[in-house]
Amino acid sequence: MITHKFEHPLNEKTRIYLRVESLLRQLHLSSTFSDAQQYQLFFRSIFDLIEIFEQIQLKSELAKDIEKQRVTYKSWLDVEGVDQEMLTSLLNDIGNIYRDLMQAERFGQSLKEDRFLSAIRQRFNLPGGSCCFDLPALHYWLHLPLDKRMRDAKAWMDSLQPLYEALTLWLKLTRETGHFKEQIARAGFFQSDADEANILRLSIPMQYGAYPMISGHKNRFAVKFMSFETGQACTQDIEFELAICT
Amino acid sequence: MITHKFEHPLNEKTRIYLRVESLLRQLHLSSTFSDAQQYQLFFRSIFDLIEIFEQIQLKSELAKDIEKQRVTYKSWLDVEGVDQEMLTSLLNDIGNIYRDLMQAERFGQSLKEDRFLSAIRQRFNLPGGSCCFDLPALHYWLHLPLDKRMRDAKAWMDSLQPLYEALTLWLKLTRETGHFKEQIARAGFFQSDADEANILRLSIPMQYGAYPMISGHKNRFAVKFMSFETGQACTQDIEFELAICT
Repeated sequence: MITHKFEHPLNEKTRIYLRVESLLRQLHLSSTFSDAQQYQLFFRSIFDLIEIFEQIQLKSELAKDIEKQRVTYKSWLDVEGVDQEMLTSLLNDIGNIYRDLMQAERFGQSLKEDRFLSAIRQRFNLPGGSCCFDLPALHYWLHLPLDKRMRDAKAWMDSLQPLYEALTLWLKLTRETGHFKEQIARAGFFQSDADEANILRLSIPMQYGAYPMISGHKNRFAVKFMSFETGQACTQDIEFELAICT
Repeated sequence: MITHKFEHPLNEKTRIYLRVESLLRQLHLSSTFSDAQQYQLFFRSIFDLIEIFEQIQLKSELAKDIEKQRVTYKSWLDVEGVDQEMLTSLLNDIGNIYRDLMQAERFGQSLKEDRFLSAIRQRFNLPGGSCCFDLPALHYWLHLPLDKRMRDAKAWMDSLQPLYEALTLWLKLTRETGHFKEQIARAGFFQSDADEANILRLSIPMQYGAYPMISGHKNRFAVKFMSFETGQACTQDIEFELAICT
């Protein structure tokens, strides 16, 4: 059965975390410059990330959240039935990642100070603005040998490594708290309590031709399924799987 | 010798034409959805094009310009030394393309009326805004079979075919009016008259490590070469090739 995986954040902070995760993934995938267009996605990911870093104090938010996870996992030390070796190793990883995070620059600082990146950032968002006459320096850079471009890309990405490690850890631990359970949306509608949750994860069979519209916050949420073809709310029952991650 | 090709428009209209050409190329290249990220470039090209269509009356501008070219080429009919067969065939092509252009809808009309495209257009430009929770309908669409997605892409692109044909013709004939000649920018600087030109084309050896900054208008222009490494104006002589296209 072909399913369609879906994630929904239940608060603004997690919404930003998921967007940043998606941008970091896009940055990584496009950094091989394996076709003539990938540079577009590469630079757009960088500039979108810088824009997000300018809007919120991502580093301190993430540090607080990692610390909160550390406290939770610490409380399981010496609890019977808990694999102490695994737990110690995890606490060790959390400690290292937290330390690297705290030692890191303000996210995006060195990207914003990079002369080349700042020179192209403004015009990059013009519609069709990546033409050579709009961005002559970029156009020159694109003609440089691949290994030079990949070295530049690596240097830019390296400055984001502490963010990547911390965010990946937080999202991994968060996602692991949820377990998929079968649910039915009667007449296309489902609602439930969430109890301080951060992320909802859904797995929806494609056969219904439906996608979810989700509203809610950390304690309560509602899922309304919409028909892709008609754009209207579904009226049939829809069986799907749901995991609530705190 | 590795060179770096460069084009610069000498008026605002040609600037838009070149941006639209670049967006149409990007649209075409990304329409195979051959990797998991190409949809990003595909939809961004469509939305950038719609934004340009909203800003200028591209169809009537282009029709006027094609008509002007037709008049020029007509004046060569029965001129001795001109290949009349080729000329007649070209005038025939121009006539067909002009007719299709005049019969076309206002550019982007059907794209703007497309329910799916309008539903995703607004959020698509958010930084990191193509996450599933921001655009659930898009996320569903991405799970559809490739042939269905390619059919949709083709239908959207077909509506731009008259624009593509007309723009390609105008740019081809315009570029053909220029012939590359060797030039020297003394101490990195070059200026010249242009005589109602539309596009400058440059071919610059990469060995100088320099890219051009061009200013000017249809009758006069200046090229200043900048060093990529230092970001400062070059002071050495630079040999390059230049074609002035009217």
